[in-house]
This record gives sequence, C-alpha cells and structure tokens, in this order.
Amino acid sequence: MESMGAVVFMEREGEAPSLLLEKVLFDPAAVWLAEALKEQGVTRFLVVCHADDRVAAADCFPQDTLFITNGAQEAARSSAFLNEMDTVIHLTKPLFPAGDEDAAQGAVRVSGEARRALQGMQPALTETPEGEGVSPVKGFVPLTRDALYEEIPAIAQARRATQLCRAGVRVLDAQSTFVGPAVTVGRGTVLLPGTILRGKTSIGADCEIGPNTMIRDCTVGSGVTVNASQLNESIVEDGAAIGPFAYVRPHCHVGREVKVGDFVELKNSVIGAGTKISHLTYVGDADVGERVNFGCGTVTVNYDGDGKFRTVIGDDAFIGCNTNLVAPVQVGAAAYTAAGSTITQDVPPQSLAIARAHQTVKKQWKNQRRERK
Amino acid sequence: MESMGAVVFMEREGEAPSLLLEKVLFDPAAVWLAEALKEQGVTRFLVVCHADDRVAAADCFPQDTLFITNGAQEAARSSAFLNEMDTVIHLTKPLFPAGDEDAAQGAVRVSGEARRALQGMQPALTETPEGEGVSPVKGFVPLTRDALYEEIPAIAQARRATQLCRAGVRVLDAQSTFVGPAVTVGRGTVLLPGTILRGKTSIGADCEIGPNTMIRDCTVGSGVTVNASQLNESIVEDGAAIGPFAYVRPHCHVGREVKVGDFVELKNSVIGAGTKISHLTYVGDADVGERVNFGCGTVTVNYDGDGKFRTVIGDDAFIGCNTNLVAPVQVGAAAYTAAGSTITQDVPPQSLAIARAHQTVKKQWKNQRRERK
Amino acid sequence: MESMGAVVFMEREGEAPSLLLEKVLFDPAAVWLAEALKEQGVTRFLVVCHADDRVAAADCFPQDTLFITNGAQEAARSSAFLNEMDTVIHLTKPLFPAGDEDAAQGAVRVSGEARRALQGMQPALTETPEGEGVSPVKGFVPLTRDALYEEIPAIAQARRATQLCRAGVRVLDAQSTFVGPAVTVGRGTVLLPGTILRGKTSIGADCEIGPNTMIRDCTVGSGVTVNASQLNESIVEDGAAIGPFAYVRPHCHVGREVKVGDFVELKNSVIGAGTKISHLTYVGDADVGERVNFGCGTVTVNYDGDGKFRTVIGDDAFIGCNTNLVAPVQVGAAAYTAAGSTITQDVPPQSLAIARAHQTVKKQWKNQRRERK
Repeated sequence: MESMGAVVFMEREGEAPSLLLEKVLFDPAAVWLAEALKEQGVTRFLVVCHADDRVAAADCFPQDTLFITNGAQEAARSSAFLNEMDTVIHLTKPLFPAGDEDAAQGAVRVSGEARRALQGMQPALTETPEGEGVSPVKGFVPLTRDALYEEIPAIAQARRATQLCRAGVRVLDAQSTFVGPAVTVGRGTVLLPGTILRGKTSIGADCEIGPNTMIRDCTVGSGVTVNASQLNESIVEDGAAIGPFAYVRPHCHVGREVKVGDFVELKNSVIGAGTKISHLTYVGDADVGERVNFGCGTVTVNYDGDGKFRTVIGDDAFIGCNTNLVAPVQVGAAAYTAAGSTITQDVPPQSLAIARAHQTVKKQWKNQRRERK
Repeated sequence: MESMGAVVFMEREGEAPSLLLEKVLFDPAAVWLAEALKEQGVTRFLVVCHADDRVAAADCFPQDTLFITNGAQEAARSSAFLNEMDTVIHLTKPLFPAGDEDAAQGAVRVSGEARRALQGMQPALTETPEGEGVSPVKGFVPLTRDALYEEIPAIAQARRATQLCRAGVRVLDAQSTFVGPAVTVGRGTVLLPGTILRGKTSIGADCEIGPNTMIRDCTVGSGVTVNASQLNESIVEDGAAIGPFAYVRPHCHVGREVKVGDFVELKNSVIGAGTKISHLTYVGDADVGERVNFGCGTVTVNYDGDGKFRTVIGDDAFIGCNTNLVAPVQVGAAAYTAAGSTITQDVPPQSLAIARAHQTVKKQWKNQRRERK
Repeated sequence: MESMGAVVFMEREGEAPSLLLEKVLFDPAAVWLAEALKEQGVTRFLVVCHADDRVAAADCFPQDTLFITNGAQEAARSSAFLNEMDTVIHLTKPLFPAGDEDAAQGAVRVSGEARRALQGMQPALTETPEGEGVSPVKGFVPLTRDALYEEIPAIAQARRATQLCRAGVRVLDAQSTFVGPAVTVGRGTVLLPGTILRGKTSIGADCEIGPNTMIRDCTVGSGVTVNASQLNESIVEDGAAIGPFAYVRPHCHVGREVKVGDFVELKNSVIGAGTKISHLTYVGDADVGERVNFGCGTVTVNYDGDGKFRTVIGDDAFIGCNTNLVAPVQVGAAAYTAAGSTITQDVPPQSLAIARAHQTVKKQWKNQRRERK
C-alpha cells in the first residue's frame, strides 16, 4: 500500500499559542485535524511548531509523530521522514476539516516524484509547495480566530453527525449531541439528546447513550445503556446498565451485565460481572466480585483522614442497606452484612456480620412529648 | 356524526419490517401516523401488514384495530369494517404526518358512495383507489429510509411544537423539547429545555416540567413541577413537586401535594397526599400514608437476597434520618423512628422506635492517634 | 456626564396585564427591556402602568424607578423626574431589544431642549413625542403576543450569545444555553451545553459552568466549576467545585476551594474554605468551619418534626461516613466522629465521638438460613 504522511505547520499568532491548540467544542482543533487526515489515509505526521507549543501539540497527534521546533537542527530528521513516504500532504496554514467540496488554500498533496524534487528545502516546510505533482487537497476550511468562535463548531458538529449516521449510529438530535473527533461509536447505537462523548472514548454496538450523558476517555462495550450519567477514564463491559444519575470516576472497570443505578458513585474500583449497585451507594477503592448485591445506602469508608484503603468483596456477597464497610476490610464470598451495620472487621465467607443496637419502643411517646413541650 | 375509518397498508422492504415500525424520535412512525389520522377524525383502523409485523404494529394502533395479514382469509372481516364507515382514508404507501399543505401520493379519502363501488376488491386494499368520490388527503409526506434519518424527525418535532403552542402550552425551547405523538399536555403548562415526554403520557394544566426531564407512560395531574427528573409508568396527582434529580420507577402512585425531592428513588409504591420525601431516600415496595415525613437517608429494605417485601407506614408518621425499615414491617400512624435506627419490628401508632448505640467520647483522641502513628 | 432617563409606558391588553410582564425565556420582557436601556446609558426610569401591574413591574426595574399609575395625581413627580434628566427615551409601545439596526415605532430619544418644550404635558407620557429634537431610537422590535411565542425568544437568546462572545465568554452551544438579561459572566468562562443562568446571577472569570446546569440568583466567584447541578440564591466563592448532580438551595455561602460533590444537597448553610462535602450528603441549617471533611452519607438532622435546629462544626473536623448529626449539636475543631454514629451530644475539640454497636459474626449463616427455609 502507498504510504501517506502529513506535514502540519502550526503557525503562531504572535505570542499566542497556535490556533490549532484552541478548543473546538471539547477538543483542540489539532485533534480534529489529525483525525481527518487519518481518514484521508495519513499514517505518519511531521509537525512543525513553536517550542512552547510542543507539549500541548504532542497530546493531539499520534505517539510516533515527529515534532520539529528548530528547523536547522532537525532538518535531517524531517528529511528522513519525508523519504519514507510515497505521498505527503502539506498543511502550511491553520485549517479545519469540513465538507468534501471545501478546498482551502494551504493544503496540497505532493506526489513521491515531486517530493524528491523538493527534498532538502527545509524552510519550505512552512511554505506551500508548488509545481508539477502538487495538487490541492479538498475537505478543509481556513481556521481563523473569528471562525473558531462562529462557524467552526457547527461545521465540526455537523460533520460528525454525518459520519455517525453513515456508520449506522442513530443520533436522535444532532444539534444537542457532541461527539469528539477521536471518538468511535458502533453500529446500532442510539445517542439520545444531550449526549457528550469526549476524548479517547469508544462506544460499542447497540448501546443506548443519553439523554444528558457525558463520557470522557472511556471504553464502553456493546449493549450498554448509560442514562443521564457521567463517566470518566473507565472501562465498561458488554450489557452493563448505568444510571440514571450515576457518576463513574476514573479507574473503574465495570464488568459484564453490571447494574450501576441511580445516585451511585464509583471510583477506582473493579466491579465483577453481574453485580448490582442499585442506588444511593458509594463504591471507592474497592475490588468487588461477581453477582454481589449492594443494598441501598452502602458506603465504602475508604478514607480515615490520613490514608486511603481498599475494600475487597467476594463473589455472591450481599451487602445490607446503609452498611459502612470500613476499609481495609474484606467481605468473604457469599457472606452477608446486616442492614445498618458498620463493618470494621473481616467477614468470613458464607457468614453474616451484624453490628446493630436492639430496637426498643416508647409507647405513646408522641403524646408524652407533646405534654413536655 | 359521519364515521371515518382508515386503511393503512404497512408495506415491507424485502425482509425488513415495515418502515412504519422504525422509530421517529422516541416512538414508531406508525404511532405518529395513527395519532395524525385520529386528529383528522378517524375512529377505526384496518391495518394490512406482514404476519411478522403484527405484534409490533398492534402496539401502535388503538385496541379495536383490525389487522389483516392474509388477504384471502380475512376478506370478510375487512369487508365488514369498510361497510361500517361512511368515509375511509386509504394509505397505500408509508407516509408521515407533516404540514397542512403537504400532499403525498398514496393518501386518499374515499366517500361512502365511491367506497361501495370499490367493495369486495380485497387486493385493492394495497392499491390506491381511483375514480369519482376519491380525493387526495393532505398533511402527509413520503416516509423513506433516507427521510427517516434526515428530515422526518425535525418535521415531527416542529409539528408537535406548533400543536402544543396552539393548545396553550409554553415550550421554552422547541429544539430541545421532544413530545411524543400520543402525549397530551394541558393549557398553561411550561416545558423547559431538555424535556422529553414519551409513550402514553398525559400532563395536566399549569405544570412546570424540566429542564432535562424524561417522562414515559405517566399520568401527571395539574400544578405539578418535575425538575431534572425521570418518571416511568406512574401516576402523579395535582400539586406534587418532584426533583431536582429524582427517579420514579414503574408502578408508583404519588398523591396530591407530595414532595419527592433530590436524590430520591421511588419504586412500586403508593405515597399518600402531603407526604414529604425530601432527599437521599429510597422508597420501594411501600404503602405510605398521608402527611408522612421521611428524614434524609431513609431506606426501605425491601430485599433480603431471596424475596421482596412491603413496608407499610401510617398517616402522620415521622421517619428519622438514615433509618432502615426492614420489610416486612409496619410503622403505625403518628409513630416516630429515631434517626439512625434499623427498624426490624413493627412500630405501634403514636410510639417512638429507637435502635441506637450510646454515644461515647474519647477526648484528645486526635493527639493520641498522632502519637501512635 | 449627560444624564439619561427613560419613560416606559406599560400598556395593558384590555383586562390582561401588560405584555411587558410576560416571560421571555426565564424573565419578564420588562427586565430584558430595562437591561437594554441601561446599556444605552439610561440611569433612571419612569414607568407608567396600571395600578394592578405595579407590584410585578417593580420587580423588573431598578429600585429608584418612579411608578405612575394615576396620571393626574402624580404629574408633579413625573415632572420632577423629567426635569432632572438631560435626555429622555420614550417608549410608548411594548418593545423588545433586538439588533442594532432594528428601529420599531414607539421608541424616541428626546433632547433636553425638546423635552422642556414638552414639559407638563402629562397625558403625552403615553404618546410618542414628535417634533424637533426628537429622534428615533434603534435596537428594538415590537412586542406582540404572537411575537412573544414565536420570534422573540430566539431574538433574546441570540442577542445574549453575541454579547457574551464579545465579553470573552465561550459559549459552546448557543442554542442550548439560556442566559437571562440581568446576568453577568466574566471573561474566560466557558458555558457548556444545557446551561441556564437566571435572575440576578453573576458568574466570575475563568469558570466552567455546565453541562445541564441551572443557576438562579447566585453570586459565583472566579475559577469555579459547576457541573450538572442546580444552585439558587446563594454565594459561591473562588475556586469552588460543585457537582456533578449537586443541589444548592437558598441561603448558602460556599467558601473558597470548597468541594460540593455528587448527590449533595446544601441548604441555608455556611461552608468554610477548603471544606470537602464529596458525596451523598445533606448539609442543612449548618455552620461549617474550614477544611472540614464530610464522609459519604452524612446527614445533618435539622428537623425533629416540630422545629429546625442548627449544626455547628469547627475547623478541621472529620465527620465519618453515614453519620447523623442531630441538631442542635456542635462538633468541635479537629474532632472526629466515627462512621455510622448518630451524634446527639456535643463533641469536644480534638475528640473522637463514637456511637456504634459491636460487630458480631454468625458463621456459616448462609447455609443455616438455607436449611431453615
């Protein structure tokens, strides 16, 4: 297969960072650009940028991108890069991906032969090549500061909506749905109004996401529902059901067919397949087995004011409502904790742990109280 | 009054179900169509569909709709149907309701006389009648697969917005409001941005619904507020106030002037008039009287790992904060439970139930702890 | 500086209140109008309205506005008002602020000299002045009942979006963002989709607000994040982080760098700087010091069925998870409460309060239970 590279010149506006580092919706313009170039077949990137923009730029392009911040010293490296590629797309102005028919100045494709003729002309990396074998590249509009705040976000949003529709994703309301450039969504998935998918998120097939859901940097399997919830930097396996009103914080691994219900927060936890965390519960710093049932109001007490500790729960355990699990603590497989208990010591498998005061009743208390007052 | 029927031919696309069974926003296109025909005066439906589409189609039309899946055998029934009606609207192609001036091919009105002339021509049920006494019906556009994903949802949404406005409903933002075809909303009600009303939902007069609220298959009275919440398959009576961030699951009956506050879940419960469930509470499988006050953090412990049980609470009871009510259990009228109690035995009326450990204090504990470490 | 006044005639539609009292999005049209006139330089208002509209109108204009409900009696006051102003803008019809080029009938600017010529013509307050020194005022369109439900809300929303953009506010999605006429937002602040800012709200610089957030009548500092939450009639200081899914009710003062996390409700409370209320907690009627840590599931038990009482918590206190603080109660500085405790007596500074039953374990309980069944 013919190899295709891209040379992207990230021009600065005086002292300000390159316009390509400004956000369009939830991601820098450079990420939108890089993803569009990949779609055109680009596999390697050479980015020419100011030294101060380099760290931010590195977040926007693939890991093996070559960055040039000092033309003279790094000419050799760029020369090597150009030699490896059959075709090179040169972007010498800030551009933004648009419709197929748009063709902005500053985007050209240079064929292998023409490229060899241009070879070694290092300053030319920032200038649009000309001549035979150089042809304009379509699909881009100029990225200016005015456009950034005006037409560009709508262009980005509409372009994604079209791509998703072609990929068999059903977007109920394109205007209130925001899908970042690096996000992938599987066929048959429905995005309800108010869905925001950001960062390096991938969603499987046949999911229902939304309404009013924000997912950032997550890997979500197939057949998953996420309703009115927020998920961050986590993995969710097939068939899980999340929300409404759940909050998954970073470093969670939610297993197959897990239920994470309403008013539930997860943080830095592994949840085994088939486990149900139905409502009003916080699971943090925990390793939870399969088919565990969390009663309503359960709290993993992971912080004692000095340090954070882990809670470990075995398969098939049943955690009673309003239970405190004071970490570090282990609840064994198939063990039970009684509702309203504060569990401070490990619970052996198959056992019931209970920490509860006896119930007493003061009869006719209401009348006596009224008399006292 | 002249009786009007409709014959709807649900053509298949090869092996795929009829396009009329595809969803437009949150409901099948057939539901949108049936509701539009009812608005034109249609009271009875005869639907000609593939046998495999019959179950799905039955959910879209009124209960007394006549379904024909095999022309020959059921000709007699259809003939009887046609005989009962003065006028019949024939829809022989997949159509979708649109503006008053739109007039798609495949929708005609056949007068009584013309109908009698067409009588008995069973195969003609799938062909557009022609001739004298046959006139085009306005208000429909063709339903194609492309249109389904492109212009149809916006047509549906705009048409509902216009209808609601005419009915005295104030829709703050028509673009982010989604009201299904079978939903009714009373005069003076305000729909805030991000409101989704689905299925067989009816909303009374002078309510405030939204923002970011989804209600499915509910009957909501007048003067109700529902703020940033989700409600399903339940009844809510006049003057109730729900949310923000409440979740009402199926089979609830929420009485007049009830407060269902923030981070509250209800499920399969009856809540008497004037009761307050203000915050962070789960009421499931419960029968709750009038004017009951639920403290924050209350949980009805309805599941013991094997079965589900009911909680019964009398009028004027006061449930303390972070109380567990372990079902099956009854709390009598005007009884109290002390905050932090796990109630496992019935509480007589007027009584106070308490299940709580004594408070002890370790003075200067913080310094001693620091020394230990 | 030249002083500029405005005379606003709030015509009635028969028996109905003035159209200017109808809401456009979340605020009466009169508030939109008053704010637009202030932008044009108006510092004093004279409002001519029906006696029955006066109270509602008073909420829409600045406190020192002069109201005339009876021409004859109050002519002297209006005469004095007019004498104080160099220029007066007369609005004799219901108008609504629009683009700079719009110029509706019924809005004129009257210079000092022309005004003196018009002096004493009290009935003329309701008629558009004419003659030399009288010039049309641009920036308004007619406010009719039809326009109120059709084009006016979009005009209002678009105008605010433009103003915010010019003021250096980044509005991610202008169509789903609703910012009231009296709201101010600082430079560098980002408004995510689904943000509603209402009433007398001010937001500082460099905040991130939204998605799906509603803030009414609040003063929010700089560098604050508010995510998927609702805030009302409260003050939030610099650097605070609120949400997702938090609910701040009226009369809260949230200090610098405070965290109000998920599923947290605050009401009528003062929260000191650096305090963390991370999750599933209700703090009501409380005075909380600085750097306090609230465990998950904490409840201030502020209501005993008869009265409401306050909870006082000193600096650096640590409140254990699922603690009930039964008010009136004080937790001293740097004191601890153990998880699962119901605290009914004051806790001295530096001390640990604990109210908890001992944990017992029934081994092999699961098997025994199975046998019993």
